[in-house]
Amino acid sequence: MKIALLLTGNELMTGDTVDSNSAMIAQSLAVQGFDVAHKVTVGDDIDLIIAELDKLAALYPAIIINGGLGPTVDDLTSEALSLLTGEPLVENPQALAHVNEWCERRGVPANAANLKQTMLPASACVLANPVGSAVGIALQYRDCLLLCTPGVPPELAAMLEVSVLSALQLGFPDASARLVRRLKLFGMGESSLQQIIADQCPHWPTEVVVGFRAGVPLLELKLEIEDEAHLSLRDQCEAELRQVVGDFIVGENDDTLGAIVIALLQQQNKQLTLAESCTGGMIASNITAISGASSVFGAGFVSYSNAVKTNVLGVDAALIEQYGAVSEPVVKAMAEGALKCSEANCVIAVSGVAGPDGGTDDKPVGSVWVAWGGVGAINTHLFHYPVGRKMFQTIVSALALDLLRRYLLGSTEVPNYYQRKRLKPESNV
Amino acid sequence: MKIALLLTGNELMTGDTVDSNSAMIAQSLAVQGFDVAHKVTVGDDIDLIIAELDKLAALYPAIIINGGLGPTVDDLTSEALSLLTGEPLVENPQALAHVNEWCERRGVPANAANLKQTMLPASACVLANPVGSAVGIALQYRDCLLLCTPGVPPELAAMLEVSVLSALQLGFPDASARLVRRLKLFGMGESSLQQIIADQCPHWPTEVVVGFRAGVPLLELKLEIEDEAHLSLRDQCEAELRQVVGDFIVGENDDTLGAIVIALLQQQNKQLTLAESCTGGMIASNITAISGASSVFGAGFVSYSNAVKTNVLGVDAALIEQYGAVSEPVVKAMAEGALKCSEANCVIAVSGVAGPDGGTDDKPVGSVWVAWGGVGAINTHLFHYPVGRKMFQTIVSALALDLLRRYLLGSTEVPNYYQRKRLKPESNV
Repeated sequence: MKIALLLTGNELMTGDTVDSNSAMIAQSLAVQGFDVAHKVTVGDDIDLIIAELDKLAALYPAIIINGGLGPTVDDLTSEALSLLTGEPLVENPQALAHVNEWCERRGVPANAANLKQTMLPASACVLANPVGSAVGIALQYRDCLLLCTPGVPPELAAMLEVSVLSALQLGFPDASARLVRRLKLFGMGESSLQQIIADQCPHWPTEVVVGFRAGVPLLELKLEIEDEAHLSLRDQCEAELRQVVGDFIVGENDDTLGAIVIALLQQQNKQLTLAESCTGGMIASNITAISGASSVFGAGFVSYSNAVKTNVLGVDAALIEQYGAVSEPVVKAMAEGALKCSEANCVIAVSGVAGPDGGTDDKPVGSVWVAWGGVGAINTHLFHYPVGRKMFQTIVSALALDLLRRYLLGSTEVPNYYQRKRLKPESNV
Repeated sequence: MKIALLLTGNELMTGDTVDSNSAMIAQSLAVQGFDVAHKVTVGDDIDLIIAELDKLAALYPAIIINGGLGPTVDDLTSEALSLLTGEPLVENPQALAHVNEWCERRGVPANAANLKQTMLPASACVLANPVGSAVGIALQYRDCLLLCTPGVPPELAAMLEVSVLSALQLGFPDASARLVRRLKLFGMGESSLQQIIADQCPHWPTEVVVGFRAGVPLLELKLEIEDEAHLSLRDQCEAELRQVVGDFIVGENDDTLGAIVIALLQQQNKQLTLAESCTGGMIASNITAISGASSVFGAGFVSYSNAVKTNVLGVDAALIEQYGAVSEPVVKAMAEGALKCSEANCVIAVSGVAGPDGGTDDKPVGSVWVAWGGVGAINTHLFHYPVGRKMFQTIVSALALDLLRRYLLGSTEVPNYYQRKRLKPESNV
């Protein structure tokens, strides 16, 4: 069932606050089959608020209103409802009891600002707020159910759980939940994936809706159905997808490459070490972001300078002299040195030119040698991603983790990430 | 001047994506005197998009449209503009050149999905996109200037800077820019800072408007005036602020702690090394995110396991045995070891319990020992931030860099970060 969302607050208009409430509302209501189809945000301007409520109420059977329930003069929701409906504001006994109880618990008397929160339109029902002083408001306006919620995120979260969802379900008992399957891919863009599905899965059923969420470094692919009866159809679609792009699918839901690699290392009882030059600690950070990383990761080396490559990792200075730090022999020696120093049995090493400075004709900005594998089984490959320093570090960190993921799954083949023309190492280094 | 914002994308409606774009747009346009007064968000639904454009165009002289410029079938902006204006979609030569050049740089041929992005309404002008394949669109509809921007944040950021603002300024030369001074603070929350200003700067002039943008790890404080004549008044306010919270002000505009520390190290011709346990490479990553880091940073150690603390950094195993890895003697020995291994003369070392597991009664989750300083001059301090793993790593990384910043500026005093009660190390470790 489609519903609307009206957010109010000057801080949302100026950009001083990033609105995370609407995502929270949308996600918690979608589970029960209520989809936010239309979202309007305005400042603390009562005329605009009333006009938008009037417009949205003509289009949707329910509106969630967020913000404007607080005690200050710029909290206008109750007054706006009164002007919209023509109902006078009256002291609501339930709201009064809530405010008094809330103040009592804090050992303070209710002041005028608190008491302002007890004045609601005459026909309003109270939505319980287990956290804050403001009660929520439920009110029928013409054919539309208005549900007013507080802007403070923990209060909103609590109220969604205890009172908003049940009010919606009471009002609309026929709404039915949606079933979404979320897959995560690395190394493939949205447009390539869409093209592949169009070309290679020509009989895609209309019941399974495909959606994308472009992210860096992972792309999310969603398979959505509206009816449980189509679950097996969705499973078929997923199986078909896995046949054509399965090796690019790294996980599902909120999986990260760090978490996936850690899980594989744990399963195989392996220890990882890292020797990072151009990624400067980002791979280690992606790994240690995950709780439990310490079970498979003991040591990482950020070997930015040649001196540390030689002194700590034991890379032969003559190799660096002869081939340069960004080269196959050096990245391999970095990997071997890290394995030796750490007593790990799995390794990633990277050496590249993140830029914007430091590029040469031979090794332009964006060039990076990656080494990955295990003791006595180190693979190497040259990549080239001239995409800006931050994006380069992000992509290379993810790509190195993905190569290790594939290695742990038994493959040392280098996929055609992002459908690029392959570089010929000879011609570039 | 008041303008409207229309955001499109199913991912914004489902809550899969938290909308940070509208804050970016509002903040960058406000500086030039364009205020977002009305924001509407809808899914990839062409009828809704057209209806909203029509409504907003009757109310505002300009609309920024964000999202829907990509190559996939759910990117509908261009088609919506065509249906709204009645203009056919034609191949735009500038857009075609851009897409071809973009694909060429990546060594891939332009596919049908890419070429879809070159079909624009006949009278559309192209807004340059220096980052992605999609061009922006500027189009006059009745009395309203429509400016279409991409949903991918780095592309949006680049386009705001190079083409959107100039298009608005061309269209509305009378909008008056605001003069905003942005200061960055570390270690102080918004409400504390607001209280300090209220208490200690009682004669604050109304011409200088104070604004905040809460960020992690830095808080932004904005001093805004509307008239150049008030510049000296703003300077006075800044001087007053610096008297009361000056040591918490780390920089301005887009400064990061990594960049600030690198600049200080460069000025003092010093070399930094890092020994990270619980931050797991995040400090190194913050440093190497900055171009030019290699001039002051050669080696970092992610010493997650006790073995590597001993084998690589040379921490006496007996110290770890006696005091535990999260202790003052060990973090100091880690710092000394890193200095020795790297031949650097400046160091940060951290050892703590990021959680959620691994805490003990003695060293609860959120405890962290930080060591910082130079050869023979290492300072140590115990902090406690039980704030969740990701936030803990972010705060501790920033705090360690801030302590080094203060050290490089001549102070080894530990400030009262976030106005917390000081921990007594004896009672906690």
